[in-house]
Amino acid sequence: TISQDIDHILETQSALAVDLGGTNLRVAIVCMQGNIVKKYTEPNPKTFEDRMHLILKMCKDAVQDAVRLNCRILGVGISTGGRVNPQEGIVLHSTKLIQEWSSVDLRTPISDALGLPVWVDNDGNCAALAERKFGHGRGVDNFVTVITGTGIGGGIIHNSELVHGSTFCAAELGHIKVSLDGPECSCGSQGCIEAFASGMALQREAKRLHDEELLKMDGMDVKLAEPITAAHLISAARKGNSKANAVLHKASLALGVGIVNILHIVNPSLVILSGVLASYYQAPVQQVMLERALFSAQSIKVVKSDLEEPALLGAASMVLDYATRRTY
Amino acid sequence: TISQDIDHILETQSALAVDLGGTNLRVAIVCMQGNIVKKYTEPNPKTFEDRMHLILKMCKDAVQDAVRLNCRILGVGISTGGRVNPQEGIVLHSTKLIQEWSSVDLRTPISDALGLPVWVDNDGNCAALAERKFGHGRGVDNFVTVITGTGIGGGIIHNSELVHGSTFCAAELGHIKVSLDGPECSCGSQGCIEAFASGMALQREAKRLHDEELLKMDGMDVKLAEPITAAHLISAARKGNSKANAVLHKASLALGVGIVNILHIVNPSLVILSGVLASYYQAPVQQVMLERALFSAQSIKVVKSDLEEPALLGAASMVLDYATRRTY
Ligand SMILES: [Ca+2]
Ligand SMILES: [Ca+2]
Ligand SMILES: [Zn+2]
Ligand SMILES: [Zn+2]
Repeated sequence: TISQDIDHILETQSALAVDLGGTNLRVAIVCMQGNIVKKYTEPNPKTFEDRMHLILKMCKDAVQDAVRLNCRILGVGISTGGRVNPQEGIVLHSTKLIQEWSSVDLRTPISDALGLPVWVDNDGNCAALAERKFGHGRGVDNFVTVITGTGIGGGIIHNSELVHGSTFCAAELGHIKVSLDGPECSCGSQGCIEAFASGMALQREAKRLHDEELLKMDGMDVKLAEPITAAHLISAARKGNSKANAVLHKASLALGVGIVNILHIVNPSLVILSGVLASYYQAPVQQVMLERALFSAQSIKVVKSDLEEPALLGAASMVLDYATRRTY
Repeated sequence: TISQDIDHILETQSALAVDLGGTNLRVAIVCMQGNIVKKYTEPNPKTFEDRMHLILKMCKDAVQDAVRLNCRILGVGISTGGRVNPQEGIVLHSTKLIQEWSSVDLRTPISDALGLPVWVDNDGNCAALAERKFGHGRGVDNFVTVITGTGIGGGIIHNSELVHGSTFCAAELGHIKVSLDGPECSCGSQGCIEAFASGMALQREAKRLHDEELLKMDGMDVKLAEPITAAHLISAARKGNSKANAVLHKASLALGVGIVNILHIVNPSLVILSGVLASYYQAPVQQVMLERALFSAQSIKVVKSDLEEPALLGAASMVLDYATRRTY
């Protein structure tokens, strides 16, 4: 009927975006312009079976909602922690941040269940794709993005393309090491910037100070049942807690030195920080670069991402870019 | 005359290669097949004027010898420490390993004096070009080379091309930092792998042990006037000197962790070690990778270069590759 044809014309070309992080499993309907039309969040289950079940359920629910919202889903883009073979749509290996998540074919079961094409890449790589399409990376040939969330991820754009590496292990920026010993990391090794500066690392230090009754400051409101997080550490430091300040100083130094290593290896023209801790880290990281980078790399800019959800938007961009190339 | 024509036909197409290192200034006549026909070595002068004077003198002498050796010099390729803009033929900035060596236009005066085209690049980058053309890098799309000499240099080949970076500061692999404090480096910062593992760093530690009379072992022959070097340290360690062994263990760990950082950033399929310390470092670096790299990067191979002079051969390759493209 004519009304159905008009409906079809008015449909917004969209992607289903999935983000599998150390804490949450998120699904979103993202339209061509990069707007998140609807978003769903659940805790990321600890077992493979529960996780796969929940992904499929959330995707199916989102596909149904998309019909009502007049969004035409062109495919599914998945952002996940761990090393990913994007050609095959397989998660090769993950650190213990996401358990039971190695040698997992994501493309086949999801594509079969939904009848849609599926793209998969590492979360940091997806964040870089999002910056390239929607963020500060637009028109920038060589840039790096570092996401500080539960863990630390990253992506590298070189000559306008992602660097995946020979074993899909490039841009594992959270596991840049800045200490020969240093704190233990989720990867099983030690001295990685993720072990110094991630949300998880700061939470570990916040809890340690809290257990020693060294965290709370006058004027700071910490409820009994409330979980202690990095936010408490930052709040205590702002109120003059010198122990909290020392932890954050070391975290910033570690992250900054890790980023200096990136500058001395790929030397991008821009560093984009994203994730919950980005606004905290931006200034100290720029300062560490000034103090410790080679003269020729000191002036490289560090900016804070203005994207609300880089991993989700990047996951969506894999679908939208491919669909655009194919359709137009 | 006919005999002159035959001479011309029998001439070998060759390059003049110059290598400006932290210790020596070397010039070589290198023929198309990568053989070094003749080589000249002098200590690298400490001042800009003396250095430029000596480069020109050595090049002019070599050009005269080339005529006698029936080598047709197609151009001059220069390998130097420091950040280089290869498009302009300018040394942008050097660490104190080569003094008075910043903002130096090498192309103009040398090209004017010799009447030959001149190419310039960083020494580590030249080593990578040499491996690509003559060494283990032949046919390998993505590899990294690390040279351990007086300092530590490196080069990165990605998609068969050198990575120069936005400010010509990529592949400054000697200044990868593996410690938040750590020993002071020639670059003015600290914790760089050059400050732990270069020939200079090992010499510094060897001298320290020697001054404390802790270096010499039974059966080790150290003459009074002989300068103490990294070789003495390695020799003492092999004879069971535990202090020397500890220094070398830390140096190997630092270099290995630095290379793990390269694997987690660009993830090449091959790591090629060159320079005087390469045979010493190969096994321990491979071991550190096994212990500290992410699972997906542990199996990447570390090989020792089989090129005698990677920096000189790479400098020559800039000339030979260009001449080949242009001529044939
Ligand atoms: Ca990544
Ligand atoms: Ca280099
Ligand atoms: Zn790690
Ligand atoms: Zn340094």
